[in-house]
Amino acid sequence: MENKINHLGEAGEQLIIEGRNPVLEAFRSGKPIDKIFILDGCQDGPIRTIIREAKKHDTVLNFVGRERLNQVSGTGKHQGVIAFAAAYEYAQVEDMLELARSRGEDPFLILLDNIEDPHNLGAIIRTANVAGAHGVIIPKRRASGLTATVAKTSAGALNYTPVAKVTNLSRAMEELKEKGMWFVCADMKGEAMYRLNLTGPIGLVIGNEGEGVGRLVKENCDFTAGIPMKGEIDSLNASVAAGVLAYEIVRQRMRQS
Amino acid sequence: MENKINHLGEAGEQLIIEGRNPVLEAFRSGKPIDKIFILDGCQDGPIRTIIREAKKHDTVLNFVGRERLNQVSGTGKHQGVIAFAAAYEYAQVEDMLELARSRGEDPFLILLDNIEDPHNLGAIIRTANVAGAHGVIIPKRRASGLTATVAKTSAGALNYTPVAKVTNLSRAMEELKEKGMWFVCADMKGEAMYRLNLTGPIGLVIGNEGEGVGRLVKENCDFTAGIPMKGEIDSLNASVAAGVLAYEIVRQRMRQS
Repeated sequence: MENKINHLGEAGEQLIIEGRNPVLEAFRSGKPIDKIFILDGCQDGPIRTIIREAKKHDTVLNFVGRERLNQVSGTGKHQGVIAFAAAYEYAQVEDMLELARSRGEDPFLILLDNIEDPHNLGAIIRTANVAGAHGVIIPKRRASGLTATVAKTSAGALNYTPVAKVTNLSRAMEELKEKGMWFVCADMKGEAMYRLNLTGPIGLVIGNEGEGVGRLVKENCDFTAGIPMKGEIDSLNASVAAGVLAYEIVRQRMRQS
Repeated sequence: MENKINHLGEAGEQLIIEGRNPVLEAFRSGKPIDKIFILDGCQDGPIRTIIREAKKHDTVLNFVGRERLNQVSGTGKHQGVIAFAAAYEYAQVEDMLELARSRGEDPFLILLDNIEDPHNLGAIIRTANVAGAHGVIIPKRRASGLTATVAKTSAGALNYTPVAKVTNLSRAMEELKEKGMWFVCADMKGEAMYRLNLTGPIGLVIGNEGEGVGRLVKENCDFTAGIPMKGEIDSLNASVAAGVLAYEIVRQRMRQS
């Protein structure tokens, strides 16, 4: 299997691309761009082409003032546009299924419904690697991308564990269901995880730090797994919850084999 | 039971101590001080003593202008120095055993061997609360104290779960052993946690982010519990590891009862 995760520099630095032609070129070469800053009010042809490309690729667009662009710019020649590219390339979901097949294992994926804190994302990618998951799927919008902080917090796991970015998490789940996977979402109020059967081809869905798993995504889950709560506080840190649930899956898989 | 965790203000507010003698006194009494503002250019004897104490305790020092001090000061009598102390008081280990007795449960404590990252400390205190542990024990030196970041990351758990600071972690363990407790330390290379009996009065020992559990502390542990590793990366984030092990203890306790 070709490794689609190319490490482009020192520990996961974010690549900043400045100027109209360089940004358009980045889009054309298929480089994964997380976010674009465009000078507010800028309306000429090249900028409109960049906006069109950004929308086509579902890239997050921010219209900002000139001071903000100058502040971010390393060269001072941003021409009203700065793109932030991931220092790591994203994988495809199919790569993860292929990885599972090559290891002779049932697929085990972790899906993150809008994890916003890069420390949480990095820690979860690290957990996915250590727990033997075959990949992590994140949505394009309202979520942390693969920034330098994520790479650092992942402790190197980003070099090994594929991370895919999808436009619509629910649709990705539906496609995976057709391939025989089923999904369990983490919810503190769900059935105690120890009493659920978490074996087989499984996707573990972890929700946003504040709001939990979104309604549409939750409706696409086959089960809701709860972590027993015995104190006054009613939830764990998102990366801790992901670890606790991932290891319940590991425990049940080990017992089975 | 007297609650030794006195909440002195809103979620994680800090105590402000003003003036030379009060600040020196705070250091001498062992009050945990997070940060000190000192009037820039101030060089007299008492200020030099305060700077020396601050360095000894690894307190953050900020040299600021008189306006900044006046702005922060509540009394107007800061004498060129203002200290920011942790808003939470430490508990005693005995309080934790008492809490377990009052709940009719075997004691379940989490001991941290030099956790340095306040985000990890906060997340572990949160996990301790949610998992029903009776307290968290940290060493006095080379470890994060109860700062505002810890309070915030604990998501309020610091108001409920007692945290004790001890001079010597090994000695504290020896004393607890005499009271019938036994200890398990986390080590990725230990016996798989699922195969150990983790019930009874138990102390879970989590090591430093980089170096793991220290030699002396490890020698005082009855068992070493390993988290199965299935990837290329050979350890979890410290707070994730604490969560995974704490919940294996919860699972075994639930199965037993």
